[in-house]
Amino acid sequence: MAEAEFLIVESIYPGMTQLDFTGPHTIFSRIPGAKVVVASEPGGPIASDGDLVFAGTRRMAEIERCDLLFVPGGAATEVANDEAFMRELRRLAASARYLTSVCTGSLVLGAAGLLKGRRAACHWGWRHLLPLFGAIPDPARVVRDGNIITGGGVTAGIDFALVVAAEIGGETLAQSIQLAIEYAPAPPFDSGRPETAPPEALAAVKARMAPLLAERAAAAERAAARL
Amino acid sequence: MAEAEFLIVESIYPGMTQLDFTGPHTIFSRIPGAKVVVASEPGGPIASDGDLVFAGTRRMAEIERCDLLFVPGGAATEVANDEAFMRELRRLAASARYLTSVCTGSLVLGAAGLLKGRRAACHWGWRHLLPLFGAIPDPARVVRDGNIITGGGVTAGIDFALVVAAEIGGETLAQSIQLAIEYAPAPPFDSGRPETAPPEALAAVKARMAPLLAERAAAAERAAARL
Repeated sequence: MAEAEFLIVESIYPGMTQLDFTGPHTIFSRIPGAKVVVASEPGGPIASDGDLVFAGTRRMAEIERCDLLFVPGGAATEVANDEAFMRELRRLAASARYLTSVCTGSLVLGAAGLLKGRRAACHWGWRHLLPLFGAIPDPARVVRDGNIITGGGVTAGIDFALVVAAEIGGETLAQSIQLAIEYAPAPPFDSGRPETAPPEALAAVKARMAPLLAERAAAAERAAARL
Repeated sequence: MAEAEFLIVESIYPGMTQLDFTGPHTIFSRIPGAKVVVASEPGGPIASDGDLVFAGTRRMAEIERCDLLFVPGGAATEVANDEAFMRELRRLAASARYLTSVCTGSLVLGAAGLLKGRRAACHWGWRHLLPLFGAIPDPARVVRDGNIITGGGVTAGIDFALVVAAEIGGETLAQSIQLAIEYAPAPPFDSGRPETAPPEALAAVKARMAPLLAERAAAAERAAARL
């Protein structure tokens, strides 16, 4: 790690999926020598899914630069059409050594024009939208393509952030953080991917996603048209 | 699930480990028919580790009862000596069908006198304090003893909350949530438990914990003396 403080900017927005953000934040905030700033376009409180409100975010416009830029998923296709957010995201991205995302956060990076010709991860239910932005969908849980590191859906953010911690601070640091957060997962079911989920569970999730499919695709196309 | 709304109260406090809380919250907030209330003793904003501030928590005293009471870990031995918090926690616990915790949250349940003779999980680094409260430490990731369901350290909260979701809403519901949050973990290292962590990582974490060991043990003893 460089001697100067390594600045991580987490750009959050209303409607984000909070675990996309809080999983990586737990890990990023335990990297010695890294300063983590939680930012949003307007600054101040930001409401996520599950009715959690994060107070005191910094205004993105007030942040000059960063070493690592991170975007969580959630209402990603909405924020991809928020021109003020996207302008600040592009500006910060231009200063960053690493561009990163979790879940549908890759659609936001894509909509900012940052994933052209690059491989990226995304939540399984929305991964097919990546090519709208010239990105190459990759089903892996954590995908690295040059300086771009992306994670899959929601909980993939924990695996993703450990990969990032190892990149920034070395493997022993990442392993120490993994031990401190007792990350030896033991899911009670094997239902974390469409390929392994019981048919009833897959059907239930697809039924909930169905009304959103056309809407999010249209929003992604509007964002892509701006590129 | 009963026809009436199933009320989940998450009792949080300053210095909690945010992922202990946000992991389960993600899952609890996706249980149909459950209402999730984030509460604290004073109400209002609560600052967690990693400098995250959760806005708008309800005052515990304003909540009449609940079906499930949940306590995350973190500055657990401090809150165990906060008489106002503990009084409200005991009152809510008396109304609850399920008592639950993640990480050192079990020390808080213990300090409330709720774990006498009961098996409970806890973060590996602090599990040895459980017997101060008459509880039986169990190294499993998720431990169920009657109506008490507890999870191990930090990330165990995700496994724990899926077990709780299955208990409340059935296995298909829990599997659907697992699929929606793409919980098919793939840790980049096998360092999540002291038994598997590389020696350098274990030494690093133990070195960071060392100054806290005597302090937290003393705080737990003070809390135990109140029982």
